Amino acid sequence: MRTTGYVWHERYSWHDTGTFAGIIAPGSTVQPFHNFESADSKSRFNSLVEVSSLIDHLVKVPARIATDEDILRIHTPRHLDFIKNQSELVVGDAGDGWSPFGHKGIEIARLAAGGTIAAVDAVLRGDVTNAYALVRPPGHHAERDMGMGYCIFANIPIAIEWARANHGIERIAVVDFDIHHGNGTQSIFADDPNVLTISLHQDRLFPQDSGYVTETGGSGAEGSALNVPLPAGTGNGAYAAAFERLVLPALRNFKPEAIFVASGFDASAVDPLGCMTLTATAYRQMTASLVTVADELCDGRLIMSHEGGYSPVYVPYCGLAVLEELCGFETGIPDPFEFSFGNSPAHALTQAQDDVLNVAENIARQMQLIVG
Amino acid sequence: MRTTGYVWHERYSWHDTGTFAGIIAPGSTVQPFHNFESADSKSRFNSLVEVSSLIDHLVKVPARIATDEDILRIHTPRHLDFIKNQSELVVGDAGDGWSPFGHKGIEIARLAAGGTIAAVDAVLRGDVTNAYALVRPPGHHAERDMGMGYCIFANIPIAIEWARANHGIERIAVVDFDIHHGNGTQSIFADDPNVLTISLHQDRLFPQDSGYVTETGGSGAEGSALNVPLPAGTGNGAYAAAFERLVLPALRNFKPEAIFVASGFDASAVDPLGCMTLTATAYRQMTASLVTVADELCDGRLIMSHEGGYSPVYVPYCGLAVLEELCGFETGIPDPFEFSFGNSPAHALTQAQDDVLNVAENIARQMQLIVG
Amino acid sequence: MRTTGYVWHERYSWHDTGTFAGIIAPGSTVQPFHNFESADSKSRFNSLVEVSSLIDHLVKVPARIATDEDILRIHTPRHLDFIKNQSELVVGDAGDGWSPFGHKGIEIARLAAGGTIAAVDAVLRGDVTNAYALVRPPGHHAERDMGMGYCIFANIPIAIEWARANHGIERIAVVDFDIHHGNGTQSIFADDPNVLTISLHQDRLFPQDSGYVTETGGSGAEGSALNVPLPAGTGNGAYAAAFERLVLPALRNFKPEAIFVASGFDASAVDPLGCMTLTATAYRQMTASLVTVADELCDGRLIMSHEGGYSPVYVPYCGLAVLEELCGFETGIPDPFEFSFGNSPAHALTQAQDDVLNVAENIARQMQLIVG
Amino acid sequence: MRTTGYVWHERYSWHDTGTFAGIIAPGSTVQPFHNFESADSKSRFNSLVEVSSLIDHLVKVPARIATDEDILRIHTPRHLDFIKNQSELVVGDAGDGWSPFGHKGIEIARLAAGGTIAAVDAVLRGDVTNAYALVRPPGHHAERDMGMGYCIFANIPIAIEWARANHGIERIAVVDFDIHHGNGTQSIFADDPNVLTISLHQDRLFPQDSGYVTETGGSGAEGSALNVPLPAGTGNGAYAAAFERLVLPALRNFKPEAIFVASGFDASAVDPLGCMTLTATAYRQMTASLVTVADELCDGRLIMSHEGGYSPVYVPYCGLAVLEELCGFETGIPDPFEFSFGNSPAHALTQAQDDVLNVAENIARQMQLIVG
Ligand SMILES: [Zn+2]
Ligand SMILES: [Zn+2]
Ligand SMILES: [Zn+2]
Ligand SMILES: [Zn+2]
Repeated sequence: MRTTGYVWHERYSWHDTGTFAGIIAPGSTVQPFHNFESADSKSRFNSLVEVSSLIDHLVKVPARIATDEDILRIHTPRHLDFIKNQSELVVGDAGDGWSPFGHKGIEIARLAAGGTIAAVDAVLRGDVTNAYALVRPPGHHAERDMGMGYCIFANIPIAIEWARANHGIERIAVVDFDIHHGNGTQSIFADDPNVLTISLHQDRLFPQDSGYVTETGGSGAEGSALNVPLPAGTGNGAYAAAFERLVLPALRNFKPEAIFVASGFDASAVDPLGCMTLTATAYRQMTASLVTVADELCDGRLIMSHEGGYSPVYVPYCGLAVLEELCGFETGIPDPFEFSFGNSPAHALTQAQDDVLNVAENIARQMQLIVG
Repeated sequence: MRTTGYVWHERYSWHDTGTFAGIIAPGSTVQPFHNFESADSKSRFNSLVEVSSLIDHLVKVPARIATDEDILRIHTPRHLDFIKNQSELVVGDAGDGWSPFGHKGIEIARLAAGGTIAAVDAVLRGDVTNAYALVRPPGHHAERDMGMGYCIFANIPIAIEWARANHGIERIAVVDFDIHHGNGTQSIFADDPNVLTISLHQDRLFPQDSGYVTETGGSGAEGSALNVPLPAGTGNGAYAAAFERLVLPALRNFKPEAIFVASGFDASAVDPLGCMTLTATAYRQMTASLVTVADELCDGRLIMSHEGGYSPVYVPYCGLAVLEELCGFETGIPDPFEFSFGNSPAHALTQAQDDVLNVAENIARQMQLIVG
Repeated sequence: MRTTGYVWHERYSWHDTGTFAGIIAPGSTVQPFHNFESADSKSRFNSLVEVSSLIDHLVKVPARIATDEDILRIHTPRHLDFIKNQSELVVGDAGDGWSPFGHKGIEIARLAAGGTIAAVDAVLRGDVTNAYALVRPPGHHAERDMGMGYCIFANIPIAIEWARANHGIERIAVVDFDIHHGNGTQSIFADDPNVLTISLHQDRLFPQDSGYVTETGGSGAEGSALNVPLPAGTGNGAYAAAFERLVLPALRNFKPEAIFVASGFDASAVDPLGCMTLTATAYRQMTASLVTVADELCDGRLIMSHEGGYSPVYVPYCGLAVLEELCGFETGIPDPFEFSFGNSPAHALTQAQDDVLNVAENIARQMQLIVG
Repeated sequence: MRTTGYVWHERYSWHDTGTFAGIIAPGSTVQPFHNFESADSKSRFNSLVEVSSLIDHLVKVPARIATDEDILRIHTPRHLDFIKNQSELVVGDAGDGWSPFGHKGIEIARLAAGGTIAAVDAVLRGDVTNAYALVRPPGHHAERDMGMGYCIFANIPIAIEWARANHGIERIAVVDFDIHHGNGTQSIFADDPNVLTISLHQDRLFPQDSGYVTETGGSGAEGSALNVPLPAGTGNGAYAAAFERLVLPALRNFKPEAIFVASGFDASAVDPLGCMTLTATAYRQMTASLVTVADELCDGRLIMSHEGGYSPVYVPYCGLAVLEELCGFETGIPDPFEFSFGNSPAHALTQAQDDVLNVAENIARQMQLIVG
């Protein structure tokens, strides 16, 4: 029987992103407000997990603290030192001026990376079949030498290298359905033929000059990256098609020993930062596919780590759908937004989306990412 | 020289929409939060108008209170009584269960309709060339016999009938660029050949079964409604094209004595409820076009009344762009979100959007809404 | 070795008290805001318990749902039906117009009463030595036939009667250090000589005409109530003296089989609703005394149930001090407010406070509440 | 007929005090929250002034920007440079680590000092009889060489020196009823026999070692300071007595050419930072007394500048009472908190408070601050 690990640490909700006006630092012509990247969406997701009693069908996995050694498997000493120094300030920043964090923020960033480590550890030790690490801050934009886009450390890459160092696995796939390009994960493993990075994202949203379909892996690792830059407005249908035609074939072709997922919910129809139209149904279906393919390929070893998602009101339901699919238990709690967004014509696959998938398929075939 | 009236009443920020989770009433499986329709976006818009000193280039027009007589020009006595009764409760609702308001909420709804009346009055008396009524609650979903979609009374229709009754004008056009269909305005004037209602909106967003391109006016008023249901993800380019190919020709063909605008900012790239990708530039350009066509057709008589827009951080800048175009004064305050969303590939006109415009053009030509 | 049970249910943070301006219902002349009785103080208290790792030194006790039978041991069927009906509304009220709750609010009220039941059950079964039920909504103002003052059901009285019915104990003392008079608890047990109710509170704060020193128990139960109405501004010294001279002697004289505590933190120096000046030190000392006397009298059986306390920033530290004393583990986390409020001259016992204590002592001696 | 100037600048609500937990900087053991010193209490006060229509009975006075020259009349160049430098940071601090402000914060601090200048200018030019400057950040803790306690610049002292430099007046009194000691104002004018500073405050609240009754003015200015350090819990009665026995006699004895008031509302019964019990009635009465004595002594020249007050829900009503007394117009809007806090026994003068007043009277007589 399938069991699912669940990582949440209350201190994730203490990560302090200040009084930004969404993504903009306040100043002479910008009134202070709340950062989009606030605790709300994540702590409310955890709250629904508890209130729904889904928690009783999950295995709580305590987060650990990522050590310097853990972090330095991925990041440069320069970056680690930079974050240590910024953490002594009243307000620090991970490197790009858009990624503020509070005093002692590194402690929470260590817990986020460590939460992802704890998740993969639980899976690889066989304590659980798969796991969801509801961590904060996120990680998929962080590069080896700098943080960016709210991300301080690269949670998933740190967990991957930890797993390689401690569990003797080697071949890993990462599927990133956050609306933004998983540039950090991709760049970190660009030259590593044993890590396949797949990113579905809104075309040129963030980082703006990144995530092109033509990015297919670095030297010596050609065919280790797959990018599907979908147009604004994309809905459930195109994501399903992208999974069917690209993600699942690529995973089956790659044959990973474990699958990581950069699980962002900012492609939902109710997200302030994204312009996609996904509903919880899409997240449920993607997860169901990933569970199936993980069963096929790697004994179900699926480790999801939370990335973006800025709707305090919808992330909980999207996340609940994911967790239900991971663990196989249905709470019976309806998605209250389905009524409003489930019937949108945006869920049909459009010609423009189909064109993107065709181009991506052609490139993927050329690179032998997918076959047949 | 052009002058612009500006209506804002502090009590608009007192309109109480409760603890909804965005659009969902809280309950057993829904944690309370904030209603998307909160004071934030509007009061922060007004705040920027003041802090930017744009206010010094506007003519403040005091809101008035819409009387029963004003309201009954549009609404049924049944609806007015219903709202009066709901206003005696701790929490009332405008009719659909998604439109909560606080005790004595009718007083603020009267001020919102009355603010739009005050705006048109200032314009038609010649006190100002054009006017912006930054009112709350909004109005464009309200139908003759019921409120809905956050709307209690039909602010613009009430102001139109007030103007007809008091200023001897007859022929009016309403342009609605809120992301949702302006169903209320359209239905109220469906059979009135002297009111042209134009709505650009996300296809089947809200109300879901409304705003089809084939809705072109009721009996005896064929060709008095124009609907442009654009797909999710639509950006600046398609809105510009829609204005060029549909909105402006239809206005020129219709030759109104005054133009009203249902000014919603929920098609912005940062809106939680919409999935369009507009930036402040689009709102600036649409307004510039409307100012030009109003100059051509009706001595510049343009009356904008605020509708939706649920981004507390971006509505202020979109609104500022609109006001700058109305009054012709540039504050020099940059749009801080332009950097992130201005270069999106979503701003190019797509084939799918072009198809919608072509269909709408064909229908509009058939209905003699546009010529040539 | 002493062990401490800890009850917290995530759904306590879903209790919806609407958009009151502190304690005032919004309306024509009252701008909506947040209710003082919000989730913040309690959920932040729980958050600190987790982040501090104190949780690892506590025994988590799951809340249960109080059944109709449990509730009807205390409340009238009329009151239970009233709450059931109010819970079907969008917004209900517990009876006095100052106690709003959201749709299905009864479910959370059942969990609050049930959380207190779970706490006493854990203690009386011997699973733990003592217990803290961090419940919401509070209970100490609720009377048999109506709710009031944010309270829906009388959590502690319900737990007492449950314990009597299920664990064969009879003689109970309740110590209430919430700043408001524990009128509900007192009135419910007014005529029961086997329940001693002690309340320390700000003189005539709420309910205004209640909590006089002369209230000493109903007919047949003379000497079963002890009230210490302290003047505004009272600090740590007077509370310590009140414990030394009144609370502890009365408990020793009464010899309860278990001691309940109505644990409110609204007498803290940082509370918006109260005008007392307590710091965490006072709460620590009162708890230490209660632990000691419970050890002496009733095998350490101490059950604390959370009542008021409206400072989201200070309640966590006051609560942490209480929990540390209950379980005997020191987290080492300093009280960050001690620097500002710990040295206040208000902590010295004043003549006026001493006068109150003297009067109370005299009355208590007359009533044989204390001896010697 | 009496007229009242009113200063409010929307940018006061942009002053960014970050994510402090009330007064505490967040960090490893402190969860971020809201600073007590937020925009809420002031912007809601202004909102009530507008919604109540009291604004129509006031003369709007635009805030001006205090120049370097204006500021340097009071502050050291070192302090001004320090604030300039801190304002270039993402988050600056006025000097004590408890006074954070946002990027470009100096601009708002200049507006706060300039708003007080504008108020005194309007009064001394005879445009209005008296004036209220609803400014933010506050000023009364700021000393010549450093900011502290939320205060960046000494708003009132800057306005006093501006008035002396521009209007040829010399002799000024300052009455400070903020709950905290007006240490900045007192220290700035300690050696100036022509400025009388009077402060009523909670004994040793903040700054802790300041505001003793024995502080009576510096060398050469003996008898120019009057301190009334009242015990926690003090209510309306003692404040009335303090005015009758100390404040008004001292003013009459001193014979100022204008009276400034440091108007803080943190001694209200609903303030989180203070432990006094004042209601709006006390603020109304103090203002009425000051209006009367200003009429007697200096043609009604009374300039109030807003200081502390951290209750978003009660400050508006306390402030409304003050403004009504200043301008002589009654809005008829009831104080909704009167019902709960107006009847408190804490409003009677206690022996302890009387003792403080007696000591202060004796000292004041010795120093010839009062006669008879
Ligand atoms: Zn993202
Ligand atoms: Zn809308
Ligand atoms: Zn209480
Ligand atoms: Zn103060």
